[in-house]
Amino acid sequence: MSGAGGAGGQERLSGVGGPERLSVNHRTIRQWPLPRLVDGCARAAVGGVGLWREEVRAYGPERAGRLVRDAGLRVSSLCRGGFLTAVDPARRAAALADNRAAVEEAAALGAPALVLVSGGLPEGGRDLTAARERVADALAELAPYAAAHSVRLAVEPLHPMFAADRCVVSTLAQALHLAERFPLEQVGVTVDTYHLWWDELAPERTVHAGRLGRIAVVQFADWVTPLPEGVLNGRGQLGDGCVDLRHWRSVVDAAGYDGLLEVEVFNPGLWARDGAEVLAEVVERFRTRVL
Amino acid sequence: MSGAGGAGGQERLSGVGGPERLSVNHRTIRQWPLPRLVDGCARAAVGGVGLWREEVRAYGPERAGRLVRDAGLRVSSLCRGGFLTAVDPARRAAALADNRAAVEEAAALGAPALVLVSGGLPEGGRDLTAARERVADALAELAPYAAAHSVRLAVEPLHPMFAADRCVVSTLAQALHLAERFPLEQVGVTVDTYHLWWDELAPERTVHAGRLGRIAVVQFADWVTPLPEGVLNGRGQLGDGCVDLRHWRSVVDAAGYDGLLEVEVFNPGLWARDGAEVLAEVVERFRTRVL
Repeated sequence: MSGAGGAGGQERLSGVGGPERLSVNHRTIRQWPLPRLVDGCARAAVGGVGLWREEVRAYGPERAGRLVRDAGLRVSSLCRGGFLTAVDPARRAAALADNRAAVEEAAALGAPALVLVSGGLPEGGRDLTAARERVADALAELAPYAAAHSVRLAVEPLHPMFAADRCVVSTLAQALHLAERFPLEQVGVTVDTYHLWWDELAPERTVHAGRLGRIAVVQFADWVTPLPEGVLNGRGQLGDGCVDLRHWRSVVDAAGYDGLLEVEVFNPGLWARDGAEVLAEVVERFRTRVL
Repeated sequence: MSGAGGAGGQERLSGVGGPERLSVNHRTIRQWPLPRLVDGCARAAVGGVGLWREEVRAYGPERAGRLVRDAGLRVSSLCRGGFLTAVDPARRAAALADNRAAVEEAAALGAPALVLVSGGLPEGGRDLTAARERVADALAELAPYAAAHSVRLAVEPLHPMFAADRCVVSTLAQALHLAERFPLEQVGVTVDTYHLWWDELAPERTVHAGRLGRIAVVQFADWVTPLPEGVLNGRGQLGDGCVDLRHWRSVVDAAGYDGLLEVEVFNPGLWARDGAEVLAEVVERFRTRVL
């Protein structure tokens, strides 16, 4: 549970093809508490971790940031803000306040980017265009606040199967269109293979986003079927599905992105296993399927 | 079960706003055998029915065609051919043979269009582009055969959540791109609100497809959440979900499409109810949500 500080460095693997580009998103091994995740990742010579607000708040954002840094790791992203599509003024104000708090947590943690899941249609709503415009309006309020905290907002397009209830931003083109209304340092995009793999236009948009300097976060997960009820926790371990992960790695390279590559797999099968075993598998799959 | 012939016509409602534009897809009321569906639809003054190969084969395609025509109805489509992405030569040959049989059934039935669900990735496959090209190659073999039988192939883009296991054609733009390689009378597209509603580019593509004369089939269903396991049978009754159906009706109008509008809802909740009650609800929802 503890003892992560400094221990990892001595056991680091070095050289080409190692996992130093890998960042392990906490939701991939959610059975581990935060200190165990950091310790495990440091010992595995992983480059960083992607963290979630719940665990970071519980541990304390500054303290979590020190824990990660002392272990020789970086934070690739804080997940997540967003849900910015409410029409009701009170709900909208609450969402903006919550996102400001998320920005403050990201800053205290030392996360360079706050991933934003934009939100779905409001109850009874049918107007996707208007909902997307409310996301843009909310970004206009939040982006300068984030930049003042040295945090970049990372608009994430989610797979179209989430358009109704989680995220009205469904393609990288839409996410970029939103991001480009704001200064480069304020708003970027999240490129997640799970959400984008089906879209023949997404690779070209990824390269375009990279050349513009708009890629803030990159996440890898595989697509497996059948999808479970509710579809949220149906992601596949790298290599278990049909996403051409190495192609996506080459696309990200072509985009000039040289930051951490997060592995974010929501999968109850992984959560039911021993965390160390899952981490070892993630590292091995990352080496053999992504690098 | 029988007695459909001729009975419907006398009870027809007339005038603007009636259900004469409506075609009821058999899968919406699958608890009804084919003759009961035809009889019910004729009595409800519906314009047509969309049929499926299983029931049509069991009843006999010519006989089914007579049944529908004698009831004063039209067939809007036969569902379905496709699954054209196999790499294995034997599987590919079997798929082509099955699609030729589907064309023959559509011709015997008098269906103007055969809906094609292109197929997903083959076992272990990760190359969407190659799979889409195999669909194009198969169309090149099937389209002249279909046209010779006065049947048009109607390439249907399915929601991207089906890209892996059912249909590598995910957007109307992709479907049109495939169709446009062939003469107008050989290959068209299917526009289904369930599959396209999330795509901000789809309305414009629909209008474009219509102006080119490429719209072969139009289907309406609503999007509801949460999605069920496997996601196939999670469609919503018209008005129960978040698709702006009237907007889509206006898009189809703007495209110049004046054919039947099929309602195709795969939903176990509807299948568990009395068929007559479901039909009445479909007609009422069509009047109030689509027209």
